[in-house]
Amino acid sequence: MATVIGFRMILVKLGGSVITDKSRLRTFKRSTCERLAREMSHARKELAIVHGAGSYGHIEAKKHELHKGFKKDSQMLHVAAVQRDVRELNLKVLEALISKGIRAVSIPPAASSTFKNGKMTSFEPDVFSRVLDLQLSPVTFGDVVPDEAMGFSICSGDLMMQSLSESFKPSLVVFCADVDGVFDKDPKRYKNASLLSELDRSSLHALRRSEPKLADVTGSIYGKLERMLAISKNCEKCMIVNGNVPGRLEKAVRGEKVLATVVLPE
Amino acid sequence: MATVIGFRMILVKLGGSVITDKSRLRTFKRSTCERLAREMSHARKELAIVHGAGSYGHIEAKKHELHKGFKKDSQMLHVAAVQRDVRELNLKVLEALISKGIRAVSIPPAASSTFKNGKMTSFEPDVFSRVLDLQLSPVTFGDVVPDEAMGFSICSGDLMMQSLSESFKPSLVVFCADVDGVFDKDPKRYKNASLLSELDRSSLHALRRSEPKLADVTGSIYGKLERMLAISKNCEKCMIVNGNVPGRLEKAVRGEKVLATVVLPE
Repeated sequence: MATVIGFRMILVKLGGSVITDKSRLRTFKRSTCERLAREMSHARKELAIVHGAGSYGHIEAKKHELHKGFKKDSQMLHVAAVQRDVRELNLKVLEALISKGIRAVSIPPAASSTFKNGKMTSFEPDVFSRVLDLQLSPVTFGDVVPDEAMGFSICSGDLMMQSLSESFKPSLVVFCADVDGVFDKDPKRYKNASLLSELDRSSLHALRRSEPKLADVTGSIYGKLERMLAISKNCEKCMIVNGNVPGRLEKAVRGEKVLATVVLPE
Repeated sequence: MATVIGFRMILVKLGGSVITDKSRLRTFKRSTCERLAREMSHARKELAIVHGAGSYGHIEAKKHELHKGFKKDSQMLHVAAVQRDVRELNLKVLEALISKGIRAVSIPPAASSTFKNGKMTSFEPDVFSRVLDLQLSPVTFGDVVPDEAMGFSICSGDLMMQSLSESFKPSLVVFCADVDGVFDKDPKRYKNASLLSELDRSSLHALRRSEPKLADVTGSIYGKLERMLAISKNCEKCMIVNGNVPGRLEKAVRGEKVLATVVLPE
């Protein structure tokens, strides 16, 4: 395998809340996605992309409790339907990327990975290496996946970000979110909340102590941040930028100064 | 792996010329595909499906000579674009299948297979077993794939049919074509051409002697038939039916008598 491991790759996560309207079933934000594609097209390194499932996955998956695994046979048609929906979003993302000259090719999570009890049990980087060697940009995504113990489970886009980081040691990992980064307190409740320019384990602990309810408000925010801390150990730089503000992703991939939270390894 | 190997599966190929208009770029025959989905939904065994790329693949692949592998960097955006197009067709096929209650899930060829010089060098049946074990129906397709020697090459739907047959020993393999089966002479040139109810190696040899030009007229018809002969060794029954005639696929999957050419092992 010809892929050189070591700080050659830029790995970008397009958050499901950025490229879809998460509250309305299967609503793609085409213009946002095309702008982010254009911004990414300035990357001068190998580019790999992960996108969330947004409203193409979460709404129906929650309705039919797909995150809990197999309970009854009637779920299986919904498993197929949600996988189809997520591929519809993936196709739209591919289209946006290709329209901006990015040679994007799709790799579903189950093509590289196996799962048990909702955890990834194996990851085969060669599936990605083969397309990276061709100077193509692999695009993977959050999906419903076969699970050895639960029948099926959910593989998040963030989990794919972690596996790709561990295997490819990117120079830069960028999470495009719908916020400027991580704040010292909940910005929805406190006007004086301020953006943390850096986040490490100790500031995460402090945040968790002062804002214990943040986990309830925004779902699995601490789990996501823990995963980012793990990712930051496997790249030169890991950061969260606001994908809704034009120009931030472009500055990030160009290595320019940008409003963001940089996640530091412990 | 819980999958029982041995005559449990029905494996169906939806020919690219049946589910698309092969002469016009990206034209999906939705009503035909939905009818075939409904006919297949009567299968009482495990169902696996392969579809051709039709006008979503062949036209642009030929235009940019993708079947010859890597020649110049400018091809690579076309590789990405054709892969995207083929996934658009795959999404439409999934939609048609799911609408008829088939729990169809997509598995791209490169998720299970590696290629070198246009030949498959490895095939990982577990990727398919995992979804079959969940009583889902895997759907794979003809595609542009990474190739260890040529950069990229074309994996035909028929090649996937052969690999799936070798691994899963289906009870029935059905090729849905746009003709009734194999004729003793070219039916486009000879009015008295008659359908062969059975085809084996000796009748294929006889056909090749009497109709040597058939290869030029219809592309790789002999190559396709050679592959079907190989497949027939790995299943109980292998047949070609006309997918354009309503009811033929349904009769085939129900095990009823139907106008077809049955391909017999040598």
